[in-house]
Amino acid sequence: MGNSHSYKTVFFIIGTMLAALAVGMIIPAIADVATGDEDWRGFLVSAAFTGFIAVALILTNRGDLPPLSAAHAFLLTGLTWIALAAFAALPLAFSRLDLSYTNAFFEAMSGLTTTGATVIIGLEEAPPSILLWRALLQWFGGIGIIVTAISVLPLLNVGGMQLFRLENSDTSEKILPRTAQLAGSIGRLYVIITGACACAYFVAGMSVFDATTHAMTTIATGGFSTHDDSFAAFDSAAIEYVAIIFMIVASLPFVAYLQITNNFTREKVRGFFEDAQIRMFFALVALCIITLWAYQIMAQVGGASGEGSGGESLRYAAFNATSILTGTGYVSTNYSTWGGFAIICFFLLSFIGGCAGSTACGLKIFRVQILFKTGWRYVRQLSFPNGVFIIRYNGRLLDDATANSITAFIFIFFLTFAFIAVILSLMGLEPLTALSASAAAIANVGPGLGEVIGPTGTYTSLPDGAKWLLAAGMLLGRLEFLTILVMLTPEFWRR
Amino acid sequence: MGNSHSYKTVFFIIGTMLAALAVGMIIPAIADVATGDEDWRGFLVSAAFTGFIAVALILTNRGDLPPLSAAHAFLLTGLTWIALAAFAALPLAFSRLDLSYTNAFFEAMSGLTTTGATVIIGLEEAPPSILLWRALLQWFGGIGIIVTAISVLPLLNVGGMQLFRLENSDTSEKILPRTAQLAGSIGRLYVIITGACACAYFVAGMSVFDATTHAMTTIATGGFSTHDDSFAAFDSAAIEYVAIIFMIVASLPFVAYLQITNNFTREKVRGFFEDAQIRMFFALVALCIITLWAYQIMAQVGGASGEGSGGESLRYAAFNATSILTGTGYVSTNYSTWGGFAIICFFLLSFIGGCAGSTACGLKIFRVQILFKTGWRYVRQLSFPNGVFIIRYNGRLLDDATANSITAFIFIFFLTFAFIAVILSLMGLEPLTALSASAAAIANVGPGLGEVIGPTGTYTSLPDGAKWLLAAGMLLGRLEFLTILVMLTPEFWRR
Repeated sequence: MGNSHSYKTVFFIIGTMLAALAVGMIIPAIADVATGDEDWRGFLVSAAFTGFIAVALILTNRGDLPPLSAAHAFLLTGLTWIALAAFAALPLAFSRLDLSYTNAFFEAMSGLTTTGATVIIGLEEAPPSILLWRALLQWFGGIGIIVTAISVLPLLNVGGMQLFRLENSDTSEKILPRTAQLAGSIGRLYVIITGACACAYFVAGMSVFDATTHAMTTIATGGFSTHDDSFAAFDSAAIEYVAIIFMIVASLPFVAYLQITNNFTREKVRGFFEDAQIRMFFALVALCIITLWAYQIMAQVGGASGEGSGGESLRYAAFNATSILTGTGYVSTNYSTWGGFAIICFFLLSFIGGCAGSTACGLKIFRVQILFKTGWRYVRQLSFPNGVFIIRYNGRLLDDATANSITAFIFIFFLTFAFIAVILSLMGLEPLTALSASAAAIANVGPGLGEVIGPTGTYTSLPDGAKWLLAAGMLLGRLEFLTILVMLTPEFWRR
Repeated sequence: MGNSHSYKTVFFIIGTMLAALAVGMIIPAIADVATGDEDWRGFLVSAAFTGFIAVALILTNRGDLPPLSAAHAFLLTGLTWIALAAFAALPLAFSRLDLSYTNAFFEAMSGLTTTGATVIIGLEEAPPSILLWRALLQWFGGIGIIVTAISVLPLLNVGGMQLFRLENSDTSEKILPRTAQLAGSIGRLYVIITGACACAYFVAGMSVFDATTHAMTTIATGGFSTHDDSFAAFDSAAIEYVAIIFMIVASLPFVAYLQITNNFTREKVRGFFEDAQIRMFFALVALCIITLWAYQIMAQVGGASGEGSGGESLRYAAFNATSILTGTGYVSTNYSTWGGFAIICFFLLSFIGGCAGSTACGLKIFRVQILFKTGWRYVRQLSFPNGVFIIRYNGRLLDDATANSITAFIFIFFLTFAFIAVILSLMGLEPLTALSASAAAIANVGPGLGEVIGPTGTYTSLPDGAKWLLAAGMLLGRLEFLTILVMLTPEFWRR
């Protein structure tokens, strides 16, 4: 399936990515110089070191680059994300926040995978360069995952992503040019939506800096904030509703936007809302908000805990449910105190995530839909054993191989979840902390449940081993597990 | 797939079962008369009423009985268990324990499904008839589920049970005679093993009454005890090791025992231990015991909680791990205090269960094995897309239809788990209570986790709605979900 020469291509591309990262490090340095903060030194040193490694990789592997084999496309994807996180951690480690490299790597991986789990306490006092860098990492990570999800994963048949294979791109030789072309159109759209989001935040009352950084982390469904209290620090209905809208926008497939904007017609808009994934996502968002709102209202009537008036309850329910469902991870209140039902809802919601081909994380809507369709077909088959039941998804026939790859994906998802939770509990974490940390990492949500890592906590106090494990979980979740796990098979290394 | 006449057969068989139940109610009544307790009246009244309904059903449906259609085999299985639980609850409701019908039905369903969750506090003061009735219900339930699992479920292709289809029994017309023949051989074996277990308990120090009742609930992997403190009341290593051995014996496929005892040869014993399911079950039991033991020892060295010396730790780990894994649900100590790792282990263990064709519950070993094989095949397939990977189970090729029915089963299992947990939390249960109650019900384990329903608690304090929901969960779990869920499909009712 491959030839060893294409290792050259792998390292060359990683070199290019690191070069881009080094250039990216200049931006926060400029922000620091502009505000008179001293922290720019760390960024320049990191940029120089990263740039040096990047240039070395590029120079030693340049020349006639062989096309990537499928195996090397996996290797490239995995190595790129690890290398980017490893180097992106440097400015965090060199800053005056004095993070250990473990903490810095955790924060960088949490950023690039758009998870949003943080180990930093005291964001208000952090240098602006660090706040900007965290936002930039999520923003880069967001566009990176869209491009990966659209171009690489479908070719590799990862977890049913072949459903989203674009025409004329089903041979691995065409990965690179196709990726570049797609990255161009999607990148433009990504910048435009981020700009719109930043303007909306500014109009709703944020400062220019907050509007910019939060726009980046909203569109990436990342969830890093510039305040320890996340959105509770603003306590503004307008800002929260802006966030809700753009978190939803960021959880829909970006290719669908391209299809609408490219020769706009009314039929295309209708087609957009007739997409099975998009419709189910909207239905799910509405269901979650209404359920949690109703629960809040009932809890107030019953005299139990519950926050604010009816309108405020709606706002809290809408903001936090959307934030967790989309895997963003912003927080506007301590929903851990809403009671058992809310805790279980938030726990289950964090698994689902948004649409494939967006920046959202988790199982993805289409997988959940197909799982239900497969399960239901099976139950019907039982009472009519000779019947032929076909599954349609979005009007297309679903073949058994795709359905199987989706159920296998979901199995691996929950197996990884259980594995990480068990190891975390072995490291001494409480059950709720261990379970929710594992879920929040592999579904790239960010905050967990309970006192330590819940909506009002951070991951700082966890042992170092737990942080590395969770960082690995974030990467596995973000790259849809199989991109990494495939490297454990003998077939991968045979040639 | 069926004809409406075979409703007659369904009701006739239910009538026969109820008649057997009515006769069964005489046994505890005799025990009460012998010990001079007044509670025999409730049993006689219940027996008379149940007998009356049974005779009515038999008389109105006797005559030339048409063979059962597949659809009616589902209907029969579901209705039988519900009817038996509904009538078996009567003596509990009429006893001087003064249980509400909700509590009595919960207890009866928990007994018949061999779950072992109880709502009764003060077992030591309960009439012997009640203690014996609870043990008998589990014992009947245990043999009932083995017969159902061997004869009915494989024919109906429920969740991969077709793997255990016996030769010459693959037409639904032969269900009834085949069931009767199998029930005979397995029933004899069941009685012999129960007798051996009772003798062992007696030799280890139990009274005749305790030895008999605990032998019945051990072989059924049921878990009802005659003491509120379960096995902690005996505090005897000998008794606990007897329990461990017979819980394991009860979790192995009974058909495999028949194959050995029928023309005994040394090769057959080797074949027994070469069975994939049996080997994996032993490996899993050993792994769990060693892990929890090591964890206990480490916790003691580290100064944290942990019970007794090295030998005592092994005993506690072995007894409680085996009890939960096999779905028995006996308790010898409050393992809720062992720390987060133990809690998560016990939680995950409760899902797995024993071998198909035994009295044990949960997902069953073979489904977990096949899920892993399917997942691993899929990962290998990714790196070698044109490769043909086959799955073998026990040396036989596994076809895709069977693999799919197993993954669909597991999906439905966890979906039911999540659904019940969410509803329970909506009824006001704490997250750990809601999650573990749901798991303990559908996997027919019995005790949950936490203070309320944990190893030292009971289900008494739960709201009535939660008890009905959990009783439904027990039935769903015991009948492998699909036997019940299939009745929700339009195809089931079409003819």
